[in-house]
Formats: sequence, C-alpha cells, structure tokens
Amino acid sequence: MKKIDICLSPDLIDQYDLSGTVVVVIDILRATSSITTAIAHGVNIIRPVETLGECRELKLNGFVGAAERNGKKVGGFDMGNSPLSYMNPDLEDTNIAITTTNGTITLKKSKGALQVILGSFLNYSAILTYLERLPCDVLLHCAGWKGKINLEDTLFAGAVVLGLKQMFEYDSDVPAMAAKLYKSAKDNLKSAIEDSSHYSRLMELGLEEDINFCLKFDEYKVIPVMKGDNISKLKLADMLF
Amino acid sequence: MKKIDICLSPDLIDQYDLSGTVVVVIDILRATSSITTAIAHGVNIIRPVETLGECRELKLNGFVGAAERNGKKVGGFDMGNSPLSYMNPDLEDTNIAITTTNGTITLKKSKGALQVILGSFLNYSAILTYLERLPCDVLLHCAGWKGKINLEDTLFAGAVVLGLKQMFEYDSDVPAMAAKLYKSAKDNLKSAIEDSSHYSRLMELGLEEDINFCLKFDEYKVIPVMKGDNISKLKLADMLF
Repeated sequence: MKKIDICLSPDLIDQYDLSGTVVVVIDILRATSSITTAIAHGVNIIRPVETLGECRELKLNGFVGAAERNGKKVGGFDMGNSPLSYMNPDLEDTNIAITTTNGTITLKKSKGALQVILGSFLNYSAILTYLERLPCDVLLHCAGWKGKINLEDTLFAGAVVLGLKQMFEYDSDVPAMAAKLYKSAKDNLKSAIEDSSHYSRLMELGLEEDINFCLKFDEYKVIPVMKGDNISKLKLADMLF
Repeated sequence: MKKIDICLSPDLIDQYDLSGTVVVVIDILRATSSITTAIAHGVNIIRPVETLGECRELKLNGFVGAAERNGKKVGGFDMGNSPLSYMNPDLEDTNIAITTTNGTITLKKSKGALQVILGSFLNYSAILTYLERLPCDVLLHCAGWKGKINLEDTLFAGAVVLGLKQMFEYDSDVPAMAAKLYKSAKDNLKSAIEDSSHYSRLMELGLEEDINFCLKFDEYKVIPVMKGDNISKLKLADMLF
C-alpha cells in the first residue's frame, strides 16, 4: 500500500527518504499560495532563490524580482509575497525570481524527491486528485516559520490526509494527528488560525485580505511543479502515472 | 509573563534557547515512566548512558545495568525498560545505569537548561504543581521515536499545557495544537493511542500491562531531576523558587 507522511518542519527533513517519493511543499501564509496564484495567472516560470543577492542578480537578467523577509516586501524589488499582487495581467508569460522567509528553503530541502509539487488551499482538490492517482509514496513537507512547526501548514497537511481517506497508509503518528487537528478546525478555519503566531504577524502588517484569500478552497486547478531550478505549471507530460 | 513551548522531537532542540529554561523530558512509553517509577521506589541514582558499552562498564563498577533497544531488554543486562520491573524492593538504594532507544538522547540534548526534570502521566500533578510555582520559562521536550514525532509524548505535553491553564504564554503554535489533541483524547487515552506506531510495537512485544501502567495518572508524587550525569529525586533544596 502507498504510504503518506508529514514532515512538520524543514529541520526534520533528514528523517525522510525522499527518493521514490512525491513531496508536496506547503507554505500556506503565503509562499505556496502566492506561487499557485502566479502560475494560475499565466506566469511562465518562478525561480525560488535563497538570498536577496541572487534575487537582485536575476532581476538584472530580465526576471521580475520578488522578495519578502519577515512578512514584508523588501525595498528595491518589484514585488513581495502577497498572492493578490500576483493576479496582475502584466505578469503573464514573465519569469519571476522569488525569495521568501520560509518557502524557499523548504523547496530547496525537498530536492532529491521523485517530484516536488506545491500545495495550498487554493489548489486543494487539484492536489488531491493528483495524489490519489500516483503510484508512489507521498510526503507533505510543511515550511513552518523559521524551522518552527506552525498551525496553518499543519492544518492543510491534515486536510490533505483527510481528503485522501484510506488510500494511503500512515507512515508515522503525524498524519493522524494533523487530520484530527484539521477535523476540529475545518468548520471555521479562520477562527482556528486566529491564535497562530503567523496570523498575528500578518495582521499587524495589515495583511488580512491576504490571509482571507489564502484560506479559500479551490480557487485554481493548477499544480505548480519544481523542475530543476524552476517552478512551472504541471502539464500532462509531467504526471507520474 | 512566563513562556511555555513544546519541542516535539529531539531533532528540533537546536531551535530553542535552553538557558534560563526548565526542561521537562517526556518519553511516556517508557523511559520517563520507568525512571519515575524507579525513583518513587527508592532507587538512589539513575545514570542514563548512550551506548551498551558504557552501560556494561558501569555494571562492572557496581551499577545495576538496564538496557533496552527497540522496545526489548538487551541480553546480558539486569533489566530492560519496563516500569513494572522497577517496583522491585531489591532496587532500593541501588544505582542504575540505563540506556534506552529514545529517552537517553533526549536527556542528553536537554543539557544546558537551567534544570532538567522528567515527566510522565505517573507524576503529572507533581509536575504541574512544580511548574506553576517556577519563576522561569518552561520547555516540554518530547522524545518521540528515533527523532520522529509521536502521539503519546505529544498528548502528555498537551495535558501539561492544559493543566497549567493561562499561567504561561505560548511561545509557538505547538502548545495550543498539543492541548487541542489532548482535549479530544483525554476521555479515553488508551483508545486514542491505539493507532499510534509505538503502541503497536509494544503490543507485539506483549507489553500491554506496561502501556496500561504508563497511562495511569498520579501514581507517584516524586519528580526525577537530572543533576550532572545522574537522575535523582527532586528535593526541596533543588527547587527553583
């Protein structure tokens, strides 16, 4: 039987054997939500980079530069990490270089997997449909906040586990724990995450609209996939079944 | 306000600043339950060691040798990791060297804290009473299984957070998550952990009696404390208030 597990922090990723596994990177507030939005709105490729320097260099080479640190857009770049800003029609067919506090490092640490895709509430059902049909094991890789486990990424991972029902065997105690937390939160997701640390952080920055958007289910049907250094839209030819 | 946090795996301990913090090490099945039982039954000191070799050497130097690997007693040693075996009156005033799969490494990784104490359901109320009166921050350090987060240690950490009510400020999302999991499990703890990986492991080894005992609340009033290399009974002079 196929197995599913959840890695609750990129600091725990060394515990998992990624070869032969499809990894779903999760950074609900806001990297994977923003990247999904960008891909859905026609952005060509997104290249996640770790440092502001790399991002600046790519900007000089024709990329749109997107940089966020601690929830804020970094000065001198074209955009930050707000999903709403990626709905801009001017971004269609552009290439974006992006650096964020947590998402970028989680993507990097997922390398070595059979395939790395990006999940968020915005493409929840698309992710489920894809995972259901996969012939291999799945690892849900939560970005957290600076390595620390966070609520919103855990809840989304729990939602995926719950949505997949009994198709996968749980490979540790964590899938059942996350599913239980999601079950008790799902009727009012927003109020459930109101006590979370990152919620308060973003609210203080005036980003409530971002939060509301990131908690919407199934706005998009696209799945962003990492190929080499770039993220693009998962196409038929990329599908592993 | 004093802060409380939960480190769900020893692999995450580097995220925390332990100086000025009291750490509660938690390995419900079974190291901290067994050590609490031993201390309550009059064992003088317990020295946790990492390797079987160290344990053997201490045995040659007058220690009782207790060794467990993957749930099983290791051949050639006096005892394993069953709490029931530590109720033996012959162990009174003895010194025990112990090596276990997960507990020992969690204790070692807690060094650098202001104080390291050991918690289990068996001394739940004693732990709460002590933590309530402390003037400093608290970190609940779960042993897990070979670094992986597990259910029973998370549930106990949640029980402690819930028991302390609003006396501590949560320093991450994890305390509220663990408290919520415990709340939904507390009416039938045994059935809640029946799906856990370690439960199945111990059941296969015929250790149901051990599990039942480890889930009992407040069998003992003692708190084991780590001083230097040894664990002994927390005395009035050790209390940090």
